[in-house]
Amino acid sequence: MTSPHLTDQDLPSVTGAWREGDPVGSRQFADVGDLTLESGAVLPDVRLAYESWGTFTGDNAVLVLHALTGDSHVVGPVGDGHASPGWWDTLVGPGRPIDTDRYYVVAANILGGCQGSTGPASSSPADGEPWGGSFPDLTVRDQVAAEVAFADRLGIDRWYAVIGGSAGGMRALEWAVTHPDRVERLFLLATSAQASAEQIALSSTQQAAITTDAHFHDGDYYGAPLGPTAGLDVARRIAHVAYRSEAELQERFGRTVQDDGRFAVASYLEHHGVKLVRRFDANSYLVLTRAMDSHDVGRDRGGVAAALARITARTVVAGIDTDRLYPIHQQQELADLIPGADGLDVVTSLHGHDGFLVEFDQVGALAAALLAD
Amino acid sequence: MTSPHLTDQDLPSVTGAWREGDPVGSRQFADVGDLTLESGAVLPDVRLAYESWGTFTGDNAVLVLHALTGDSHVVGPVGDGHASPGWWDTLVGPGRPIDTDRYYVVAANILGGCQGSTGPASSSPADGEPWGGSFPDLTVRDQVAAEVAFADRLGIDRWYAVIGGSAGGMRALEWAVTHPDRVERLFLLATSAQASAEQIALSSTQQAAITTDAHFHDGDYYGAPLGPTAGLDVARRIAHVAYRSEAELQERFGRTVQDDGRFAVASYLEHHGVKLVRRFDANSYLVLTRAMDSHDVGRDRGGVAAALARITARTVVAGIDTDRLYPIHQQQELADLIPGADGLDVVTSLHGHDGFLVEFDQVGALAAALLAD
Repeated sequence: MTSPHLTDQDLPSVTGAWREGDPVGSRQFADVGDLTLESGAVLPDVRLAYESWGTFTGDNAVLVLHALTGDSHVVGPVGDGHASPGWWDTLVGPGRPIDTDRYYVVAANILGGCQGSTGPASSSPADGEPWGGSFPDLTVRDQVAAEVAFADRLGIDRWYAVIGGSAGGMRALEWAVTHPDRVERLFLLATSAQASAEQIALSSTQQAAITTDAHFHDGDYYGAPLGPTAGLDVARRIAHVAYRSEAELQERFGRTVQDDGRFAVASYLEHHGVKLVRRFDANSYLVLTRAMDSHDVGRDRGGVAAALARITARTVVAGIDTDRLYPIHQQQELADLIPGADGLDVVTSLHGHDGFLVEFDQVGALAAALLAD
Repeated sequence: MTSPHLTDQDLPSVTGAWREGDPVGSRQFADVGDLTLESGAVLPDVRLAYESWGTFTGDNAVLVLHALTGDSHVVGPVGDGHASPGWWDTLVGPGRPIDTDRYYVVAANILGGCQGSTGPASSSPADGEPWGGSFPDLTVRDQVAAEVAFADRLGIDRWYAVIGGSAGGMRALEWAVTHPDRVERLFLLATSAQASAEQIALSSTQQAAITTDAHFHDGDYYGAPLGPTAGLDVARRIAHVAYRSEAELQERFGRTVQDDGRFAVASYLEHHGVKLVRRFDANSYLVLTRAMDSHDVGRDRGGVAAALARITARTVVAGIDTDRLYPIHQQQELADLIPGADGLDVVTSLHGHDGFLVEFDQVGALAAALLAD
């Protein structure tokens, strides 16, 4: 049974219409070949979808890495295939902090996602059917390995800067640790060296909401009349509470009851749950959150400190004062252990973890300072 | 579909065997008649199950009010019908802080619950079938109104003390505001004057996990082969993360992976989810969490300050320093506005909100100080 506020019209995610993500719009595609995963499995015929802005001059490429349910549409209006405006719309563009008159800005959709890069809804080369539940588990390192092959494909040997927040920060960090010679500057925002027990706790609860949905069918729900939309809806609500701050929820909603008798804050969460269900694949949600759980920059590298010591990039590390999902002590650890980091920058925000998507002025100033000569 | 780790044997909750709760054991029952609810609806033939310890001497009765999934088994060993030892086992008893050589201690199971007090699994007088989805919504005030009728039935005109933590604290507070003449001393622990937007956010997400479970059947699942056990499991996991602290989860589990390849913290949450499913009814979980959402001691009383000013009891208010579900500012508000409160006591604990069930020494000392002449 789906949420009572979802109708069949609201559920393109179970009809397959969304399976290639939003319409292509301004996206381009790069085929990067087979990818050997950390697990030893081989993911064949990997493709990444991406967008880019500005002109490549050989040494001005900036990689912007999106978060869990984000995508390559960093900047740009609604329309032309994009259901939402760019998620860092005021940060990237001509004359903006990440100035596309100077920099060639590239954003790739994450491996395992559902916006055109290879993921569980992609056709498996074996039989042409969607991977579904047989899509292999990924790690953040696998996702970065795909991005490395992607950079090779684009002819970008070295990024002028790699920038990411939250799960995007995990990939940015892995880039800088794995290929220090290819990352000149690094911006890590509201992210961590390792997924913590609490982050895994919240993540595993969201995964359980999806996998125990009666319509999950072990991930092979693409041809079924219903998919695990109710589970994905609940997963998003769990996440969304963690993304915001107690004070913000209190200030915005308090105990307000709507005309329909429901608490406004409950309705707000349902809105975000339904919105995600409309545009996101539950299998991708599982693959991506499990990859985030795998995040441990120190694994098989002698620990976190040894791994972070490899980074040669000039680095800005920033956290958000009200972020309870990626609490500030996680960014403090990064700032303490990355040789090229000059202390920790704290963004002040009422909005918790989502502050990295909201506090454009503060985040923009930090980005501009990092990119400046 | 249920959690993969639940088997049919694990699911007495859907067979109806649990419908009267644990075996009667040391519980007694009090029929308190029809109850007119705040909504105007009448709940007929209300019965409360309870336990008691010590001897009533007329002025020595202490009411201990349990939290959301607690019950009347405050003290006592496993066995004799009780699946778990008493939840405040070291606090209540002969010579203990709440001394049953001196006090007559009473604990009633909450109205709407599933341990013998009238609730959704009780037989409806209309047709003898379980209420299920037709059980009326309750408020904390309704639950206290049932307890007032229960106290009348027992011949207790005035409590020497009313004591409660979390949802039990909500009822204790309502007792003291509604019947100040019947509450001589009051112990409020890890509770609040109003359910906050964040508490409602987490609560409504848990409710959605249950009501969107394909086996929920609008609450009328008692005769069905499966009930919303997966939804209740997820609900408990959401709650359980909020009950503990980030630091505790990190210290206990970190990124430890078990032999079965699962993260230990995920396994721990599943354990608690399954454990609750075995002993608790999803409909009760809905009724009780909605009642908690309704909690606003100031509603129709001119606001929180005016309501709290009614309290005449000598009051101890305590919070837990790491409690993020009932953050300390909520108890500070109570301490500031209750005339008979002498400041706020802060319990230090690694365990977050659940510290009220763990920090026996600190909580016991506060209880003993309140009860002392």
